[in-house]
Amino acid sequence: MLMRMVDIIEKKRDGGSLSKEEIDFFVQGYAKGEIPDYQASALCMAVVFQGMNRDEIANLTDSMMHSGDTIDLSGIAGLKVDKHSTGGVGDKTSLVLGPLVAACGGKVAKMSGRGLGHTGGTLDKMESIPGMRIGLTEEEFINQVNTIGIAIMGQTASLDPADKKLYALRDVTGTVESIPLISSSIMSKKLASGSDCILLDVKFGSGAFMKTFEKARELAVAMVKIGNTLGRDTRAILTDMDQPLGLAVGNSLEVKEAIKTLSGHGPKDLVSLVTEAGAIMLEQGKVVSNHEEGVRKIKAAIADGSGLRKLAELVKAQGGDCTYIYDPSQFPVAKREIEIRSTYEGYIERIDSLAIGVSAMKLGAGRATMDDVIDMSAGILLNKKVGDRVSYGDVLATAYTNKDDVDGVLIDIHDAFKLSEKAIKPQPIVHDYVR
Amino acid sequence: MLMRMVDIIEKKRDGGSLSKEEIDFFVQGYAKGEIPDYQASALCMAVVFQGMNRDEIANLTDSMMHSGDTIDLSGIAGLKVDKHSTGGVGDKTSLVLGPLVAACGGKVAKMSGRGLGHTGGTLDKMESIPGMRIGLTEEEFINQVNTIGIAIMGQTASLDPADKKLYALRDVTGTVESIPLISSSIMSKKLASGSDCILLDVKFGSGAFMKTFEKARELAVAMVKIGNTLGRDTRAILTDMDQPLGLAVGNSLEVKEAIKTLSGHGPKDLVSLVTEAGAIMLEQGKVVSNHEEGVRKIKAAIADGSGLRKLAELVKAQGGDCTYIYDPSQFPVAKREIEIRSTYEGYIERIDSLAIGVSAMKLGAGRATMDDVIDMSAGILLNKKVGDRVSYGDVLATAYTNKDDVDGVLIDIHDAFKLSEKAIKPQPIVHDYVR
Repeated sequence: MLMRMVDIIEKKRDGGSLSKEEIDFFVQGYAKGEIPDYQASALCMAVVFQGMNRDEIANLTDSMMHSGDTIDLSGIAGLKVDKHSTGGVGDKTSLVLGPLVAACGGKVAKMSGRGLGHTGGTLDKMESIPGMRIGLTEEEFINQVNTIGIAIMGQTASLDPADKKLYALRDVTGTVESIPLISSSIMSKKLASGSDCILLDVKFGSGAFMKTFEKARELAVAMVKIGNTLGRDTRAILTDMDQPLGLAVGNSLEVKEAIKTLSGHGPKDLVSLVTEAGAIMLEQGKVVSNHEEGVRKIKAAIADGSGLRKLAELVKAQGGDCTYIYDPSQFPVAKREIEIRSTYEGYIERIDSLAIGVSAMKLGAGRATMDDVIDMSAGILLNKKVGDRVSYGDVLATAYTNKDDVDGVLIDIHDAFKLSEKAIKPQPIVHDYVR
Repeated sequence: MLMRMVDIIEKKRDGGSLSKEEIDFFVQGYAKGEIPDYQASALCMAVVFQGMNRDEIANLTDSMMHSGDTIDLSGIAGLKVDKHSTGGVGDKTSLVLGPLVAACGGKVAKMSGRGLGHTGGTLDKMESIPGMRIGLTEEEFINQVNTIGIAIMGQTASLDPADKKLYALRDVTGTVESIPLISSSIMSKKLASGSDCILLDVKFGSGAFMKTFEKARELAVAMVKIGNTLGRDTRAILTDMDQPLGLAVGNSLEVKEAIKTLSGHGPKDLVSLVTEAGAIMLEQGKVVSNHEEGVRKIKAAIADGSGLRKLAELVKAQGGDCTYIYDPSQFPVAKREIEIRSTYEGYIERIDSLAIGVSAMKLGAGRATMDDVIDMSAGILLNKKVGDRVSYGDVLATAYTNKDDVDGVLIDIHDAFKLSEKAIKPQPIVHDYVR
C-alpha cells in the first residue's frame, strides 16, 4: 500500500497517532524534497492542535536525527557529556561549565550554535578570542576531547537537515510553539552530535523561549523522555530567566565574566548554576558517585584554578590566543561606555531579559538576521540584580557600544529594571530538576 | 504597519478573528502568488481547528469572489435565479429544474461544473447531446437568458482564481473538511457568477460530501448566511443522498431520465425534488407570490409539456441536436447491458450512493482524474429503490458499459443494496429548508 502524505495529515488532524513508518515517510520525504512545504506546514499545524504522544515524539526525533550524518564519538574513551541551553540572555554557562567538567575528568564533546535575535550563541562568544577556530573536522574534534577532555565546534552542515528545513518552515507558518515539535527539533540535533549523556538547561521567563515555568517544565519533561527513550542518559534543570544570567551581556564582555568566574570571582547566580549543572554532568559521566561529590569537585576546580587552565588549554587547542585568558584586559573595549542611572528608587523585582537582550543586540552585540556582523565589544554590564536596593541616581547598568545614536536603547535598558517598594528576596537560579 | 502572513496565521491559530484587511491580504496575496502555499495551508489547518465567525466567512467569500472577474447579469431583465447542488449521485436536477423554472417565467442563468470521482457534472451530461456547446461568451450567455429564459455554461477560467488555487491546495493538505472553507468556496463562485437569487441543494448521506444531516445543515446555514450577508436572496433545501436520485446514473442515461421526467413520467423522488425546488426558485424570482402557486405552476409545466419544450429550446440555442429531446432512442446505447439480480430477499433500506457512483465511474461514466475521457452511454439504471420489496432473483439494477472486465463492479453494485427484513417507509427527498 502506497503511503500518501495527505492521509498522514488527515490522521493527525483527526487526533490519530502516527506510526513510525508514517513519521519516517514524512521526515525522509521532506528532507529529500519529495514532500512539499505546504503539506509539511499543514501537518505541523495539525500537530500544534493535536499534539503527539511519547512514541510519536521519539520516532520523530529519531527520524530527523537520521536525516543526515550523525557523529560517532565511540573513539573517545569514557562517557561523553553534553549540555544544551534553550537560550537565554547573558548565558555564558558553556564557557565556564565545559572547562570545569573537563578539569574534573569529564569528557565534554560540545556542538554549539550561533546567536540570533536577543539570545547570544557560544560560538560567537568564543570567536571574540583572536584566532579561535570553531570549524573542526570530526577527527580533530574527537582527538581533542581524547587529549584535553573538551572541544567545542559548530554544527556541521550535514547534521540533521530535516530539522534545519522544518525549523525554517515552522518559523514562517506559526507552528513554532508546539512542545512535540520544539522538543524533537532540539533533541534530534543533540542526539545526532553523539554524546552519551545530555544535560538540558531549560530556561523560563521574559528572556526565554518559554515564558512560564509550567511550559518550560513541560518541554523539559518531553525532552528528557525523548533522550531516555532513545537510550541516552538525559536530565534537565529549569532555570530562571526573569533577569539576565550574571552581569555581562555581549560577546567579549561575557567571555571576560566567564574568566572571572573561573578565577573565583563570578556572580552568585552563574556560580550557582555551573556548580549544580557541573555536579549533574559529573554524575552522568560517572566521574563521581553522587551529587555532593560533584559539587565539591566543581567548587575545587574553581578554587584551584584548574577550570581556568582548562579554558586556556581549550582556546590554545583550537588556535586561539590563550594569553587573553590570563590577561583579559587585552580584549578590545568599545569606544563608548555609557552609565544608565535609576530615576526611581526601590528594590529590583525583575530585569526584563528580553529587553536587555534586544538592547544589547541594538548596541551591536547581536544579529537581527543571520547576515549581520557582530561587534564583539558591544553589550551591557548590569550593576544591579534582582533583590538589590536602588536609590535615585544609582548606576543600573553600563552600555558599551561603537554606535552613536543609541539614546532610545539607553531608555529601554533603564525601563528593563522593574522596581518594587517592598524588599525582594531573589530566587535560586535552579528552580527544578527533571530526570 | 506592514502586514505579515505569519502574524495572521498565529492570530487564527490562537483563536482570534481575522479582520477584513487581514483576509484580503491573504486572499489577494495568495491569488497573485505573493503568499506561498505553505503559509496558506498552515492558515487553512488553523481554520479547520479554530473555525471562523460569520463576518470572517462573509469577508473570505467576498474577497475570493473579487479575486477574478465577476459576471455582470444586469443586462438581463428581472431577477436571475440559480441553483447549486453540493453534488450527488444520479443528480440530473438541473436538466429538469432549469427548463421548468424558465418555462414558468423565471430567469435561469446557470454556471455549471464537470464531474469528478463518484459525482457527475451537469456539463458532462449536457455534452451527451450531439453538438451541445457549453463554452458561451458572457454576451451570448446574457442574450440567451434574455431570449429564452435559460442558459447553462461552464465557469470561465478567470472566475474566482483564489478559490481554484486554494481548493487544489486544500485537497492535498487535509483541509477540505471545514465549514467556513467549504461554504466560502462554494459561495464565492456562485456570487461571482452574478445571480440575484441562489437556491442551494445541500445533500447528505453516503453519496454526498456531507455524510450526516447535521453536518449538511450546518453547511447550509453557513452558506445561506453568507449569501444573505452579501445581499443575495439565498435559501437552501436539505436532500437525501442515502440512495441515488431517481433511477439513472450516467450521462446519457440521466439525460433520458430528465426528458422522461419533463414528459410526466419521472421517478417520484426526482419529481418531488424539482417541484419543491422549482416552487422556491419561482418565489425567489418573484414570478409567484407564494409556495403553493409555485408548486402548481411547476406541476403544470410538466403536465402541459412546456418544460420539455424549454429543454429543447435550450439545446437548440446552444447548438445541440434538439431532435434527441423528442426522440431519446437516438442516444447511443452501450454494447453490454448486464442485469444484476438479488441474492437476498427483503425490503430495501438503503442504496449506498457512493458505491453506485464509484461503480458507474468504473463502468466508464465518470473520471477518476480530470484527464479521463467519459463514456456517455455507460452507467447504471436502478430497478429498485428504498422501500421496495425484493425477492430472490429480482433485478436490482442494470449495468451499461463498453468495457469487458467488470465482474467486480457488478458485485459492488449488488452489495450497494442494503436489505432489511422489516418493511421500510421511504423518507421524503426534501428533509428540511433553510432561509
